[in-house]
Amino acid sequence: MHIDMSKKWLEGKGFLLDITGVLYDSCGATGTAIPGSIEALQLLRQHHVPFRFITNESTSDRQHLAVKLNTLGFEIGAEEIIAPAPQVVKILRERGLRPFLLVKDTVLPEFAGLNTMNPNCVVMGDAQDNFSYENINRAFSVLINLAQPVLISMGCGRYYKETDGLKMDVGAYCKGLEYACGIQAEYCGKPDPRFFQAALDSLGLESDTVVMVGDDVRNDVNGAQKAGMMGVLVQTGKYRTGDEGRGEKRPDAVMGNLLGVVRAYLDAAK
Amino acid sequence: MHIDMSKKWLEGKGFLLDITGVLYDSCGATGTAIPGSIEALQLLRQHHVPFRFITNESTSDRQHLAVKLNTLGFEIGAEEIIAPAPQVVKILRERGLRPFLLVKDTVLPEFAGLNTMNPNCVVMGDAQDNFSYENINRAFSVLINLAQPVLISMGCGRYYKETDGLKMDVGAYCKGLEYACGIQAEYCGKPDPRFFQAALDSLGLESDTVVMVGDDVRNDVNGAQKAGMMGVLVQTGKYRTGDEGRGEKRPDAVMGNLLGVVRAYLDAAK
Repeated sequence: MHIDMSKKWLEGKGFLLDITGVLYDSCGATGTAIPGSIEALQLLRQHHVPFRFITNESTSDRQHLAVKLNTLGFEIGAEEIIAPAPQVVKILRERGLRPFLLVKDTVLPEFAGLNTMNPNCVVMGDAQDNFSYENINRAFSVLINLAQPVLISMGCGRYYKETDGLKMDVGAYCKGLEYACGIQAEYCGKPDPRFFQAALDSLGLESDTVVMVGDDVRNDVNGAQKAGMMGVLVQTGKYRTGDEGRGEKRPDAVMGNLLGVVRAYLDAAK
Repeated sequence: MHIDMSKKWLEGKGFLLDITGVLYDSCGATGTAIPGSIEALQLLRQHHVPFRFITNESTSDRQHLAVKLNTLGFEIGAEEIIAPAPQVVKILRERGLRPFLLVKDTVLPEFAGLNTMNPNCVVMGDAQDNFSYENINRAFSVLINLAQPVLISMGCGRYYKETDGLKMDVGAYCKGLEYACGIQAEYCGKPDPRFFQAALDSLGLESDTVVMVGDDVRNDVNGAQKAGMMGVLVQTGKYRTGDEGRGEKRPDAVMGNLLGVVRAYLDAAK
């Protein structure tokens, strides 16, 4: 039997959806829904297609992220969102780590209850305005004075798009700390296969039946492909012309936006 | 004839001296002279041993740096200092580059008269408080929107010591921008051989007769050795136990401080 590989993703049983750049473009405390993405989610729910959101978003806790999205017209529950902070908290508890948190204040609720006195590691997220010279030096100072420095970064993205332009992402700051301290960070978030696995566990589907949709060819598409899924690149968010050729492997499909993905999928299922 | 390599540096004809961590420990606008370093320079001048200062310092122009040092008791002329900013200005003029300057305000006098409208490159130094999230994103935005991004960094240091602790250096921020943009910066400063050559030209001596004294095994000592000089590591400034073994090559000598270097040199010349 001949299988057209370029169409295989249309036979998937469920979706993992990136949030920023796929559902909406962020801009500080608000943002703008990407045209068609609200309808796309409605269509998936109407047709009982299972999905979860998987994001490296570390600027707010899941509760506030859901509220922010719902204000834009989405209908999303916090429990549908797989985000790095809860995974990091799990790691910290398992290993008895006390973090210095180089993060934005609005994600702090995820870390409530952790011991942060006399830190023996640094956890960083997209701290935005908290990426001040002073805060970065405090994180550096914690690491350089540890015999076994542990740096955990919520994602390793290079940049992302806000409505007023591209912004440097946590990965760039993380590389700076790695270089200054001569260490390697541990990443929690896409493209880490363990992070994708947490999303698959939540979805309850096998990796080879799941389609990841994202605007980042490396972290979303290639990351999902390495974890055994199919990866579809959408030309929204931070997508720039030619991105489909900039990863280690080409996407299973390249589509204009999420609504295009969902319509093609539902059409094929008819 | 047997030459004891470990003593060869004592036969040098002149010195290049690092400033921060060798003459003084910096702390914001002031700092503290490292014990013995004022006397060390006096001894070199008394004995007519030629020397220059070679620094990756990019937080102020040479004039203000000399004034700052002289306030601590040194007697240094701005013209004795080889610093990255004047070398960068030369490069910018030669290549017709218009920089976005991610630098500290106090180094701006070195860049006076350059066209900075509609920038087609980024020049970065140790911007300290100017390494704000906003400024870094402005630099990132310039680079990511250029067809041929040019990033010039005044040094690639990992960290340096201020009196209140170790601080992340420009190299770490530069690595972050490199990662975010997927580019390689051009470095101006130690350990670039062209930068050492500018200092040798000023000194008027051949490389193999010159001894570099610094507290950074990679940028000072190994950099000088690669440029054909001898390199002596001093255990002041940011020196940490074991640093002599952390470079690509061992220093020609390891001494307690600059005064120890100068006394040993003058004793050997007797």
